[in-house]
Amino acid sequence: MNDVIDFINMNRDRFVDELKEYLAIPSISALPAHVEDVRRCAEWTADEMRRIGVPEVELIETPGHPIVYGQWLGAEGAPTVLFYGHYDVQPVDPLDLWESPPFEATIRNGEIYARGAADDKGQVFMHLKAMEACLSRGERLPVNIKVVLEGEEEIGSVHLDSFIREQKERLAADVLVISDSPMFDRGVPSICYALRGLTYYQIDLRGTTQDLHSGSFGGAVANPAFVLAQVLSQMKDRSGRIKVPGFYDDVRVLSDDERVEFEKLPFNEKHYRQEIGAPRLFGEKGYSTLERVSARPTFEVNGLSSGFIGEGAKTVIPALAMAKVSMRLVPDQRPDKITKLFEDYLKKVTPKTVALKITRMSGGLPWITEFSHPFVQATARAIERGFGRRPIFTREGGSIPVVSTFQEVLGLPAVLFGVGLPDENAHAPNERLDLGNFHNGVISAACLYDEISRVGRLR
Amino acid sequence: MNDVIDFINMNRDRFVDELKEYLAIPSISALPAHVEDVRRCAEWTADEMRRIGVPEVELIETPGHPIVYGQWLGAEGAPTVLFYGHYDVQPVDPLDLWESPPFEATIRNGEIYARGAADDKGQVFMHLKAMEACLSRGERLPVNIKVVLEGEEEIGSVHLDSFIREQKERLAADVLVISDSPMFDRGVPSICYALRGLTYYQIDLRGTTQDLHSGSFGGAVANPAFVLAQVLSQMKDRSGRIKVPGFYDDVRVLSDDERVEFEKLPFNEKHYRQEIGAPRLFGEKGYSTLERVSARPTFEVNGLSSGFIGEGAKTVIPALAMAKVSMRLVPDQRPDKITKLFEDYLKKVTPKTVALKITRMSGGLPWITEFSHPFVQATARAIERGFGRRPIFTREGGSIPVVSTFQEVLGLPAVLFGVGLPDENAHAPNERLDLGNFHNGVISAACLYDEISRVGRLR
Repeated sequence: MNDVIDFINMNRDRFVDELKEYLAIPSISALPAHVEDVRRCAEWTADEMRRIGVPEVELIETPGHPIVYGQWLGAEGAPTVLFYGHYDVQPVDPLDLWESPPFEATIRNGEIYARGAADDKGQVFMHLKAMEACLSRGERLPVNIKVVLEGEEEIGSVHLDSFIREQKERLAADVLVISDSPMFDRGVPSICYALRGLTYYQIDLRGTTQDLHSGSFGGAVANPAFVLAQVLSQMKDRSGRIKVPGFYDDVRVLSDDERVEFEKLPFNEKHYRQEIGAPRLFGEKGYSTLERVSARPTFEVNGLSSGFIGEGAKTVIPALAMAKVSMRLVPDQRPDKITKLFEDYLKKVTPKTVALKITRMSGGLPWITEFSHPFVQATARAIERGFGRRPIFTREGGSIPVVSTFQEVLGLPAVLFGVGLPDENAHAPNERLDLGNFHNGVISAACLYDEISRVGRLR
Repeated sequence: MNDVIDFINMNRDRFVDELKEYLAIPSISALPAHVEDVRRCAEWTADEMRRIGVPEVELIETPGHPIVYGQWLGAEGAPTVLFYGHYDVQPVDPLDLWESPPFEATIRNGEIYARGAADDKGQVFMHLKAMEACLSRGERLPVNIKVVLEGEEEIGSVHLDSFIREQKERLAADVLVISDSPMFDRGVPSICYALRGLTYYQIDLRGTTQDLHSGSFGGAVANPAFVLAQVLSQMKDRSGRIKVPGFYDDVRVLSDDERVEFEKLPFNEKHYRQEIGAPRLFGEKGYSTLERVSARPTFEVNGLSSGFIGEGAKTVIPALAMAKVSMRLVPDQRPDKITKLFEDYLKKVTPKTVALKITRMSGGLPWITEFSHPFVQATARAIERGFGRRPIFTREGGSIPVVSTFQEVLGLPAVLFGVGLPDENAHAPNERLDLGNFHNGVISAACLYDEISRVGRLR
């Protein structure tokens, strides 16, 4: 590996020059005007993969933007890494807030500013450069590699799901690697080993055909806005615990080891509270804030609407009241089962004075690859080699649906090894990537293949 | 009185012709284009009063439309009736739904169709014709009469309140008479002897500075939309009883006599429920629907707003949640005291995890003149003489703020004797007044002065 690392160090500047070229292509998947740019970016990516020595590369067409696929399967008996990333980027509005043009990558204070620098072209390129380093030294990688780069991540991975399901055999691998997330904090490399799932509903209550005058009719009928309040208030107790019967049955208990890791995370609760402007923090008893936002399920009201909400006073009994509600789920909860439990409970607590309609909106499975998993630990060693510091282990509160899809269809463990920073403006003006992290990331990625090969195939 | 009634019967057609003339003036107070029409209508009203023999008539200017004031004080020692009405009318949109032009009064099936026919020109004119009948026979009325007709009722009686307060001595009287409400039902003459009051608030809860992503932050903080649901659900128990401590302390208990009257009212609960389209009726235990909508206080949520309410799903923890809430009050509750009780309770049940803001929006006193009051019973006898049927006694669930103002400032008992019908479209296209009710109303009004004079002065 010393040769590989030497190569990376010697080619550091060239890598950045090439990255600039990659970042210059405005591959904005959301805007029809950029369809050809997205394709050009796919072709550039494919050409680059061929150039660095990936032998089997192709553009796989979808009804939308193409998927770039490449594989190198020369490491017989070694594990196969499935690397997933995306070459499309977010739109750049509002353009006038950019300090340098979003598609002319500009370096300031050791950071490269451009749309896609962190999300996700920079991190994809980091892996390509790691592969290049390995392949240029001995023309081989320590593991087999399959690369899937989509062009629709920023528009909801519209066609990826069916691609994965259709290409299930072709994509078979031992571990999924994704670099599309930030590290915990500046100078704090991290591995995310779990994500929450989601299930989302709209609740509509109808009391009467039309809004009624509260003078003439107040007292005659149940008020659906008040009933909605009653119903929603039944969802959690005062300590923040969700009251839907059976809701917690499948929640995987936080292990002592995990809780020790949580305690290690650098976190200033007061600063956090002030940042978001809350009078105080609040949540389920018995868990720290970081545990609550990532390792515990939630019930949230996302929206409320009923009756008169303009300026002043209108004495109306609303005919309708609506709430959007959602639950973040953790392993091993499943959206379908939770939906059944939730709907049953909702029907039970809603009085017969109003008509109830429940609409399921969207959902996604939670995901976990225990941090004790050999490939996760291999990733930790690789990051330590690249960054000179052992990473911390985190769970994320949000969802990355594609991770769950890969896990569900291919049955893969996954490692989320991101080198972005939380403040690098992934979807905002002045997106950037720290070039030190990029460089350490290239080394870490190369070491990751090495470490995974040392673990060997697990099945 | 037989002479008077004969006069009314003989002049029936002429009265209607004159009413047509009155209804032809488009005295729409809300529309600046009709300012001159409103004044012309005030002048027409004043001229008419002079013509029928009211000696002291004047237009009293306000910063808005003028008040028409007239008095006849020739009945020394007899009670003084203060008659209040309004000569302004609602706008007529949508015009294309009118079957005949709103300001060309047209008679169809014994009903006169025009804007203002029921609300309130027709009912004002009914009293003027009753006065004319009395004054034409012996040139005297059995009571002293003071007439206050405003031109701003349909725009919230903007300047009436200060007029009443400033002219307190001039307006001194023994009883207030208003004919600006519908009777209970066709063929069911009625006297309204109580109105509910109102107190209205906006509640704003703030959780954080901005909306938060429910994935990243879900579990860290209280969700103000959920807290709002919790808080609102604390306002009433499951039986519909308001939980604000002390809320019922000043509620005047329904007497057995009143409840007997309520039971007499013709009311089909099933038909009522179907009309408004409610799955079932609901309200405070122990009271009938009609009692609940008129003689019992309420708590209503008039509006709810928070977070994301568009199509689809957005995983947001709202920064803000807002509710509009109001309470209908009954005698002897007072808005100021209820406000104190409500605000104290609201502060108590709102957790410290959110910032609470309460804004008081509007309010009004409830009003009652017990139906056993001699002047109310006098009105009942007068109506029986005019309609050949004893009226029923009702309470209304809404508010008529001016009634409370007269009561509060002048300390007057009041009788609400209306001859409109509930389906006469007071604020809608094709407003109309049944001419049989108008004619019976003129007789009843004349008899009312007679009956009041027989009761005599009470203080």
